[in-house]
Amino acid sequence: MEAFEKKVRASFALQGFMGTIGAELVSVGRGTAEIRFPFSAKLTQQHGYVHAAAITAILDSACGYAAYSVAPHEASVLSVEFKVNFLAPAVGKHFVARAAVKRAGKTITTCVADGFAVDGEKEKLVATMLATIMNIYPK
Amino acid sequence: MEAFEKKVRASFALQGFMGTIGAELVSVGRGTAEIRFPFSAKLTQQHGYVHAAAITAILDSACGYAAYSVAPHEASVLSVEFKVNFLAPAVGKHFVARAAVKRAGKTITTCVADGFAVDGEKEKLVATMLATIMNIYPK
Amino acid sequence: MEAFEKKVRASFALQGFMGTIGAELVSVGRGTAEIRFPFSAKLTQQHGYVHAAAITAILDSACGYAAYSVAPHEASVLSVEFKVNFLAPAVGKHFVARAAVKRAGKTITTCVADGFAVDGEKEKLVATMLATIMNIYPK
Amino acid sequence: MEAFEKKVRASFALQGFMGTIGAELVSVGRGTAEIRFPFSAKLTQQHGYVHAAAITAILDSACGYAAYSVAPHEASVLSVEFKVNFLAPAVGKHFVARAAVKRAGKTITTCVADGFAVDGEKEKLVATMLATIMNIYPK
Repeated sequence: MEAFEKKVRASFALQGFMGTIGAELVSVGRGTAEIRFPFSAKLTQQHGYVHAAAITAILDSACGYAAYSVAPHEASVLSVEFKVNFLAPAVGKHFVARAAVKRAGKTITTCVADGFAVDGEKEKLVATMLATIMNIYPK
Repeated sequence: MEAFEKKVRASFALQGFMGTIGAELVSVGRGTAEIRFPFSAKLTQQHGYVHAAAITAILDSACGYAAYSVAPHEASVLSVEFKVNFLAPAVGKHFVARAAVKRAGKTITTCVADGFAVDGEKEKLVATMLATIMNIYPK
Repeated sequence: MEAFEKKVRASFALQGFMGTIGAELVSVGRGTAEIRFPFSAKLTQQHGYVHAAAITAILDSACGYAAYSVAPHEASVLSVEFKVNFLAPAVGKHFVARAAVKRAGKTITTCVADGFAVDGEKEKLVATMLATIMNIYPK
Repeated sequence: MEAFEKKVRASFALQGFMGTIGAELVSVGRGTAEIRFPFSAKLTQQHGYVHAAAITAILDSACGYAAYSVAPHEASVLSVEFKVNFLAPAVGKHFVARAAVKRAGKTITTCVADGFAVDGEKEKLVATMLATIMNIYPK
């Protein structure tokens, strides 16, 4: 396993919240990350669908880790902000977020991510994110 | 309890995800909502602070319920999109989101919400959201 | 020229602001639009580069027209909101916005657009937008 | 005139684009800025109203100058990104953007701004922005 993947996986393992929603880090590349979780009644909104905020959680983490994967080795990363559009009800057996770096700068990295509801072979786009991540360097 | 509060509280009670993160609906007014949760290790990111996505979850729900509180009684609501800026690390004993309707239209309602980390008497602004909610009318 | 292109070009021609910034509608497809303008000292910010808001103007219009191209023929369109990230200084001889529909619904259409600074054969990504457009139906 | 106002006014005077849209810097405080322009047929969209992108231009500049007013004297500022919601048609004789710093950090400043259409004594809220600005320090 390469250094960038190792640091991302080590960080992901420390995120209590990812465990709480049942999320796993499927894969991480140079500038990409994929995170997924299975449907659970613990994650629903008032109509029994998965809560937008649960989808948002994996989109946010996937963006952060896509950025982290290409950050200088001495830097950590921080979400400055993100925006997410919800495109369809989150109905499926699994939910997956796939993020990619759009541009990596010294301080600011911009990422995009798509969220899908998965049912067997079928994937449906349910959300899309545009996020700003900042590299934090030790003083 | 007035009708608008009753429908909001009934809907909130159905959100499995709000229970999972330990959130409670503190108050709901005409066009406002306040939601909070206590710190829990279940909600952390890699540095042990509360995950941005947990704060986002209550900001999102608070915006949705602020909008729902002023929606026509036959309408339900849906998050179209939101944007959230993270202003400071989420360090505190409780976390609270306070949302208010900025403008309510027939179809689209725009809401703002601030997120605070609370420790005793002290509140610190840690996040702010601008959200678009849509009224859905029965066909 | 097909009906969707005709209605988009007719609408674009009515936008006084597009003329003011020297913008032209390069092309429009089913769910896509491209708009460009040449550098002008009339469009600069304090450092002599093109103002972020001029780039934003063509990204916004390109998103609107991408959405309009696939809207039902009786509908007009309205920008509900957008978000734009600025990725690099807008240094170039021309500036181009390319938009595409991400998802078209009955009421809400979500579009993405990239903005490029162009110098001869060279294109540099300088901005990216995620936008929400609403179809307005006659009563 | 205090130093922060002087540097903001000097920068504004260099923005060719603000001149092109007829905008003037009404006032600048510590962490606030107000910019306005009169209606002009040069600034319209297809229905004859003021283009969303013209309103966006003064919201963006007002946010940038609100941030700049509180930035350390050696720093310049840059728009990282912004999001704007359009709340009502921009119908009026003047249009004004009022921005305020929400939080100023060493690197990142977050601002909010409201846009109004003005007709005599009457002001109508037509847009609202949430923006991220970065301080750039000389190397």
